[in-house]
This record gives sequence, C-alpha cells and structure tokens, in this order.
Amino acid sequence: MPDFDAGHAPVTVIGLGLMGQALAGAFLKDGHPTTVWNRSPEKAEQLTTRGATLAGSVGDAVAASPLVLVCVSDYEAVRELLDPLGDVLADRVVVNLTSGTSQQARDTAEWAARQGCAYIDGAILAIPPAIGTADAVVIYSGPRPAFDTHEPTLRSLGVGTTYLGADHGLSSLYDVAMLGFMWSVLNGFLHGAALLGTAQVDAATVAPFLNQGIGTMAGWMTAYADQIDAGKYPAVDSTIDTHLAAMEHLIQESESLGINAELPRFVKTLTDRAVAEGRGGDGYAAMIEQFRRPAAARP
Amino acid sequence: MPDFDAGHAPVTVIGLGLMGQALAGAFLKDGHPTTVWNRSPEKAEQLTTRGATLAGSVGDAVAASPLVLVCVSDYEAVRELLDPLGDVLADRVVVNLTSGTSQQARDTAEWAARQGCAYIDGAILAIPPAIGTADAVVIYSGPRPAFDTHEPTLRSLGVGTTYLGADHGLSSLYDVAMLGFMWSVLNGFLHGAALLGTAQVDAATVAPFLNQGIGTMAGWMTAYADQIDAGKYPAVDSTIDTHLAAMEHLIQESESLGINAELPRFVKTLTDRAVAEGRGGDGYAAMIEQFRRPAAARP
Repeated sequence: MPDFDAGHAPVTVIGLGLMGQALAGAFLKDGHPTTVWNRSPEKAEQLTTRGATLAGSVGDAVAASPLVLVCVSDYEAVRELLDPLGDVLADRVVVNLTSGTSQQARDTAEWAARQGCAYIDGAILAIPPAIGTADAVVIYSGPRPAFDTHEPTLRSLGVGTTYLGADHGLSSLYDVAMLGFMWSVLNGFLHGAALLGTAQVDAATVAPFLNQGIGTMAGWMTAYADQIDAGKYPAVDSTIDTHLAAMEHLIQESESLGINAELPRFVKTLTDRAVAEGRGGDGYAAMIEQFRRPAAARP
Repeated sequence: MPDFDAGHAPVTVIGLGLMGQALAGAFLKDGHPTTVWNRSPEKAEQLTTRGATLAGSVGDAVAASPLVLVCVSDYEAVRELLDPLGDVLADRVVVNLTSGTSQQARDTAEWAARQGCAYIDGAILAIPPAIGTADAVVIYSGPRPAFDTHEPTLRSLGVGTTYLGADHGLSSLYDVAMLGFMWSVLNGFLHGAALLGTAQVDAATVAPFLNQGIGTMAGWMTAYADQIDAGKYPAVDSTIDTHLAAMEHLIQESESLGINAELPRFVKTLTDRAVAEGRGGDGYAAMIEQFRRPAAARP
C-alpha cells in the first residue's frame, strides 16, 4: 500500500444513506481518496461525480483503504455485510458509526477481535448537513492507538472529534445520554409553552425566558456532579422537600388550566420516592439514586 | 407623606422568613428606609440592627410605606394578614411575592381592587443569598403604572427585575414554567449520569459533556417556538419517527443496564401518541399538542 500523508489518507465509507453521503462528502472535500459502497449503487452518483470511487463489492471497498467507516441501518446489517469477508478485514481499522446499544458495540468488538481487525465504535451527535463543520460532534470509543492513527482523517467529519475511552460501549452510552437530555430539555420547554399559552403568551416569548435560566442550571449540574461523585448531597440551594412543594403548584396549575399534567406528576412521583427514603432534607442531587435503579428495585 | 427621591423611597416588607429577610436586607443595603413586620418579631433582630424599623402591627407596617412587599408561606396567610386592615390599604401598592398559582394571584387582585389598593403579583426566581445581586430574577405582573412608579425601588432586589404584563396570573405561570423546565433539565442530566455511571464514567465528566449540547438545544427551542406560534411543524432537523426509534434505544439501554427506564418510557409514551395522531413525519415541535391537553382529552 502506498504511503499517504495525513491530509490525503484514503478512507472507505460503507452505507450511503443521508448520513453516509455526508461522511463521504466531508472526506472528499478535505482531499481524501474516498471509496464508497452501498447496496443500491445509485446513492453513490453524486459522490462519484465529486471524485469518489464506487467499489464493486463490500470486499473491494474494505480492501481499498486502511480506514473503513460503516454507517448502515443497524448492527445486524453491519454483521451481514462484514461477516462474509474473512481475511480482507485483517489489519483494517473499522469505525462503526451505526446507531445501536452499548451491548451491541461490545459484542461487535469481540467479533472484530476474532477477525483480526481493530474496531472503533462511534456515534454522530449531529444532523447530516452539519457533518464537516464546527457544529458536528462525533464521539469514538475503542483502542486508543487505532483512533490516534486515524484521528487526522476522522477530523474531516467535524471539529468536535472526541475520543471517550477504551470501552467500546461508551460512544453509544454518551449518545443516548445526550439524546435523553435533549428530550428532557425540549419537553420542559414544550410544557412551559403550553402552560403560558393558556395566558396568550406566545412560544417565542417563552423560549428566551427559559433560555436565560439555562446557564444557571448548567452551573447546578456541575455542582451536583461533584456531590454525586462524592456520594453526599447537602442542600446547598434548596431541599428536596422544598422542590416537592413547588411541584404540587405546577401540577395544580397544569390541571386547573386544562393542559397535560403528566410530566410534572411523573417528576413528583420520583421525588415522593426520594422523600419516602428519607432524602427530603437533601439537595436535588440525591435524586440520582432514583435514576440508578428501576422502580421495582426500591429498597 | 414626605417626598423621597427614588434612591431613598421607603418600603415595607411583611414576612421575614429566609427570603423576606433577604428582601429587606437588599432594600437596607441600597439605603431605603425599610419597615418590617413578622409574626415572630425575633426574626427582625438582624435587620433592626442594620437600621430597619420593626412595626408593632401589620397595620402600622402597611401605613409606613407607599410600597408594601408581602412574602409569607401561602396566599391564605396573605389574606389573613391583610383582610382585617381596611382603609389603611387604600392607595398602597401591594407587591405579593408569596408562591402560589395564577388563579390565586387573579383572585387576590380582585380582592385588592375591593380594598382600593394597587396589586402586583410577583415571583422570585432566585435563592435568598442571590437577592440583590446580578443573579436574581424577580418577575412582576399587574398594572403597569404601579410597577413603573416603584420599579427603581424594586430594582434593589436584583438586576433581573422584569415586568411581564397586566394579567396578574403571569408571574406565577412564568415561575412554574421555569421550575418545570429546571426539573426537566436536571432529571435529564441525572438519568444520563446514572446511565454513564454503569460504565464507571463519573458525573463530573457527564455534566460538561451534556452542557456542551445546551447551546444547540436553546437554538432548537427558539426555532421550534416560531413553528409553534405559526401552528406548522416541518421537520427541519429530524422527524418524530426518527426520534421515536432513538427513544427505543434509550429505553433498551436503560433496561439492560439495570437503571431506571421510567423517564425515557414516559417520553416515548407521549411520542407514540403524536405518531398515532399522524405527526410522525413532523418535527419535534409538533409535540406541543401533547402538552396542550390532558391525556384523557385526546381526540
């Protein structure tokens, strides 16, 4: 194989959905010789006109580059494509950006070890149009040396190229943690917009009002994180008992105004449990214990 | 009554819990002649040594200043204290910072109209130590002229002194909307910390990771707000169907790792309803419809 400098290292992208096309496009833009493959080859048309090479088979695609990115519908599809390849995988670095669970990532790492290839699992925290820009965060987990070797190439995908650690499950976990956080943030906003909507306040007024509180909340997260890691939850700002009283207000308000009260009722249910376990005088960080175990596993 | 310049307008604070003491302390610090009253007068001791006047009765406290702030346990306590006063309330501006619902605020405004006093309802979005600082947001609703007259005095309580509108219910609504948003943000963080904790990632690593996403989410809130006000929810970033698939991942991940899966299951329940109503191809902003009406009121 010829030597390439970091700026022109060859790379293969398998799977040309919207995201796979964006990945290949970002590599091409940075001058990487890019080989692509997709089950329906017509998805490669735009990329080949931009200089990509369309491989005739998955095996040819893998053989073309030391770095192989896979971005398909699910982990079953990954194994279906790569399982039959055998020796051609040896000494490749496979970076799997397919969405899945941490267990699937760890299982795939074991499979890859049996094939003799280095395996990196990754997740993309961005939408396709953001790939290759300052807004794209792409996270990776697996063997550090394999990541380090190809980091200059992977950086073409976004400024936020981040290595998380050797545990292959980490990228999936960070990914779903961010998604869960996002749904929480958005649902909190939507509930507030519904509430204030009853008083003819438009959502465009609610959004900046709530956003001005986000910085303070980020500060609490940082402070609570230290308490969680220390396993002690002193009530620095407010006790769980005080929160509970305010939660009752929000439920009453939601119910009497005729909007959906399920979200605050759910929040209160969790908080009631913490109080029942003697955490009423602690700070809100003590609520971590409610999230660490299923409801059925309560003491 | 003597004339005072804005910097030295007299003010009365009724109720000297931790928050009431912080309010009176902020007025004293800015040089306002400050009269205080509390059911247990010993709570006034620190304030009187700093120059506050302890009134002998609620009536004397109200008579002492054109601007009267009330911060007690609940709205019943407000009425118990002020109902017997009669004429002394006339021409006062009563600012009620007691926590309650928008209905209680509107009812109290009607009561105040019968007493001949101007009524402003307010809410404090800060903890007592923040009162008087740049971090304190205090919101007010009620007649604009009464607010404008006393705004220079009220600004002693915090840089974030904000008038919301004439509807007395607004401050309670904005208050609980911000609290609900806060619990959502914090619970999203705690669930993520529990999830990543299973892979020995400490919370102090999770907090900054999630916080880096907050700016993007704030941007979505702004964009979704415009869609909500327009009543149309095109999928600019991602469809509800796509979100739903990722929610399944988060539930599976939470369950297989043995942490609490109730939060993502709840989020998915709401989202399933939106899909059942034909919103699967819309953007996430269409979820507002799930928050606008009780679950029982679905079409």
